[in-house]
Amino acid sequence: MPHAVVTLLQDALGAAVSIEPADLEASREDRSGWRSATAPLAVVHATSIDEVQAVMRIAHDTATPVVPRGAGTGLAGGAIASPGAIVLDLSRMNRVLEISEADELAVVEPGVLNGALNDALAERGLWFAPDPASRAISTIGGNIATNAGGLLCAKYGVTREAVLGLAVVLADGRLLRTGHRTVKGVTGYDLTALFTGSEGTLGVIVEATVRLQPIIPGATVTVAAVFPDIEAAAAASAAVTAARLRPAVLELIDAAGLARVAAFLGADELAGTPLESLAPHESFLLAQCDDAGAADEAAEIARLFAAAGGRTTLSTDAATGERLLGIRRAVHPAFAASGQVLIEDVAVPRSRLPEMFRAIEEIGRRHGIEIPTIAHAGDGNLHPNFAFSGDEVPAHVWAAADDMFRAAVALGGTLTGEHGVGILKRRWLAAELGDDSFELQHGIKALFDPTGILNPGVMFESSAAPAR
Amino acid sequence: MPHAVVTLLQDALGAAVSIEPADLEASREDRSGWRSATAPLAVVHATSIDEVQAVMRIAHDTATPVVPRGAGTGLAGGAIASPGAIVLDLSRMNRVLEISEADELAVVEPGVLNGALNDALAERGLWFAPDPASRAISTIGGNIATNAGGLLCAKYGVTREAVLGLAVVLADGRLLRTGHRTVKGVTGYDLTALFTGSEGTLGVIVEATVRLQPIIPGATVTVAAVFPDIEAAAAASAAVTAARLRPAVLELIDAAGLARVAAFLGADELAGTPLESLAPHESFLLAQCDDAGAADEAAEIARLFAAAGGRTTLSTDAATGERLLGIRRAVHPAFAASGQVLIEDVAVPRSRLPEMFRAIEEIGRRHGIEIPTIAHAGDGNLHPNFAFSGDEVPAHVWAAADDMFRAAVALGGTLTGEHGVGILKRRWLAAELGDDSFELQHGIKALFDPTGILNPGVMFESSAAPAR
Repeated sequence: MPHAVVTLLQDALGAAVSIEPADLEASREDRSGWRSATAPLAVVHATSIDEVQAVMRIAHDTATPVVPRGAGTGLAGGAIASPGAIVLDLSRMNRVLEISEADELAVVEPGVLNGALNDALAERGLWFAPDPASRAISTIGGNIATNAGGLLCAKYGVTREAVLGLAVVLADGRLLRTGHRTVKGVTGYDLTALFTGSEGTLGVIVEATVRLQPIIPGATVTVAAVFPDIEAAAAASAAVTAARLRPAVLELIDAAGLARVAAFLGADELAGTPLESLAPHESFLLAQCDDAGAADEAAEIARLFAAAGGRTTLSTDAATGERLLGIRRAVHPAFAASGQVLIEDVAVPRSRLPEMFRAIEEIGRRHGIEIPTIAHAGDGNLHPNFAFSGDEVPAHVWAAADDMFRAAVALGGTLTGEHGVGILKRRWLAAELGDDSFELQHGIKALFDPTGILNPGVMFESSAAPAR
Repeated sequence: MPHAVVTLLQDALGAAVSIEPADLEASREDRSGWRSATAPLAVVHATSIDEVQAVMRIAHDTATPVVPRGAGTGLAGGAIASPGAIVLDLSRMNRVLEISEADELAVVEPGVLNGALNDALAERGLWFAPDPASRAISTIGGNIATNAGGLLCAKYGVTREAVLGLAVVLADGRLLRTGHRTVKGVTGYDLTALFTGSEGTLGVIVEATVRLQPIIPGATVTVAAVFPDIEAAAAASAAVTAARLRPAVLELIDAAGLARVAAFLGADELAGTPLESLAPHESFLLAQCDDAGAADEAAEIARLFAAAGGRTTLSTDAATGERLLGIRRAVHPAFAASGQVLIEDVAVPRSRLPEMFRAIEEIGRRHGIEIPTIAHAGDGNLHPNFAFSGDEVPAHVWAAADDMFRAAVALGGTLTGEHGVGILKRRWLAAELGDDSFELQHGIKALFDPTGILNPGVMFESSAAPAR
């Protein structure tokens, strides 16, 4: 006999409600490698705001948890089935509702893929700047729910800067609209920013008005170099900042990461690149420059890379540039191919990058694990990858991650630069925020979700969630 | 005999507490022309976080209202003495505590003037982008409290985008730190963004970590033109957007405004500018282009302006450019010289600018007043100026302002683009937000300020403030 809540959902929503085992199973995981302990009651494939409101009314009336979910590409367990929950899948709400060229904005449903929106915009000479590495497979709704970052943030900002307004279904099913169709607007508190990065814990984002930009004119110029060690690569990165240059992309790969990428891509793919004859300890730094000053800026960066001891390549043609960026893009596939990894996401002030790399090396040595690491060097965001075997993250890997988090915070950094807290990092939330901030954040959660049905266990420990 | 609260303040803070009539009087007004009904109990000239905490503890214990105040340059009555209040003057907390070139950030006290910070940064090749017209006289703390805009927002963002972290004294005197020294950071809800634009109603900003940028290299190129009417000027502005150009500045002055500016500046000052032989109904549009593509972009804009019927000047030398921008800068002095004005601050989607200009003209005709208007055309933010005589805003001017606010919202716009709600616009807050948003915003206010002592009457009507 179906669960009473499932019957209510089916009566209200018909075929949108799935209790197919394959659907239920798929909702138990994301790209973090984390898997929830149980399957959900049901997965609702919503196709309209009305349906989302109907789900939330039923959930509210029956005190049933709801997990809003997009494409399931998260890296923090922020959108996976929690015990006894309805998974509210928004991926079929995937229409671009409006593109206004005159107002340089688009209105989209939450399930639109970031890449799909940019495909639709390209022919109009426009561009949605938030650029997570997952852009081809992640949704705008998910990007907003995590305030996603990416490769371009130092120059073009995080997702928050591109969100003008939202439609959000509240915990009790009411529909709230926030923000404006204007760049400016300061009437009342900034609820748009508050929902951005709230990981489905304050409401369900069902529509977004996002800011567009003209595509940056001119060709991109790419500079890549291999350095004798991570210190030299970090020094080269700092030299770019010191010279007041602003490349669109500035990416760093440490020696352990680079060795895996080189093995994954193979000699043919690396011929003619700085990785052709890789020595131990060598690290990689890549810059891409855009806009009207690209050529001059790239030439200056190449000079700085060489002066810092880099084996440097400058590429003005798009194909070679794409090939060099391909080295950076190969990082996640290369790591995934070599076994299970726990992908961490700390950020530190840029000036502390060398210290953070030293701390990671030391933590790896202490716990007896290799921690290949890449960094968005332009904004100080590092992704240390903790390799492990088996289905569960072993205790010594959690211990290493704990040391790494504390090292980042001690350097003035943060637990998560762009992936979100989710389930994986909630254990450290209070330690980073401190008691007063934690209490206020908890108060905000209780204000928007008084019965605690929105994504319980995400961001806050379930035991710390408002009592139902 | 001094008020008991004043005695408590004097015991704790000594000479920082002023009950000098001149100090009390000065705190009753800002640059809006609004004046509070009564003087405050005292003005505290705080010079440290400790002193701010001491004031808030006394205020909390005695249920005394506190009005945080910077340079007093607000345009919405957001920082003027309210009945029975302590005015907490932060203008003497004016130290730049740190400039980190490597991390491209500064840590400042709230009373630092925007212009003073930029002076200190210029020699290092760095720049704080938020650019309100008041930058020479307004504080960073005030800029953050109002999420100030300015001339450069379409290209460089509003103040929120430049704030990385805050230190805030809460209503009960506790010190809260939010945000990071990094561009990215998504641990928990974005309290930094929530405090930005909260107009002193959620806490007292006592320190800010702000993001810096390298100064844009190369010379600025200016294009200015006079058009036969406002429709032609608006069409030229839209043509710039349609051509996917991004000037740093795009400013529009309507015929009524332009006539006042021309009379204010005089024939000598206007010789050689497009205002030299001004005809009735003529309107003004000015663009400034920066960065490496400035010359090409400005040439294209000049072509578009001319094609739209503009009498066009392009200036590549800095002195002439400054002189052309001086026409725009003369707007507020010119209006102030011609009598009292109520400066409004609506924003509409850029595509609705022509309709908004028509609505303003019609409203002026209906109420028998002239409403000279300037607009940040690049972001749809208009400042209609309602001229009146006498000390009080007359009822028919309020009625005209009411019509204008409703016209802006009907066009998809907002009550305030950059000045804030303050006291002047609180009467329309609920109408713009709607009931659900108003209720949530009210809940946030009650969470951060349960006894309602922080800037009561600002943003929310006093009667709607949480009960003390």
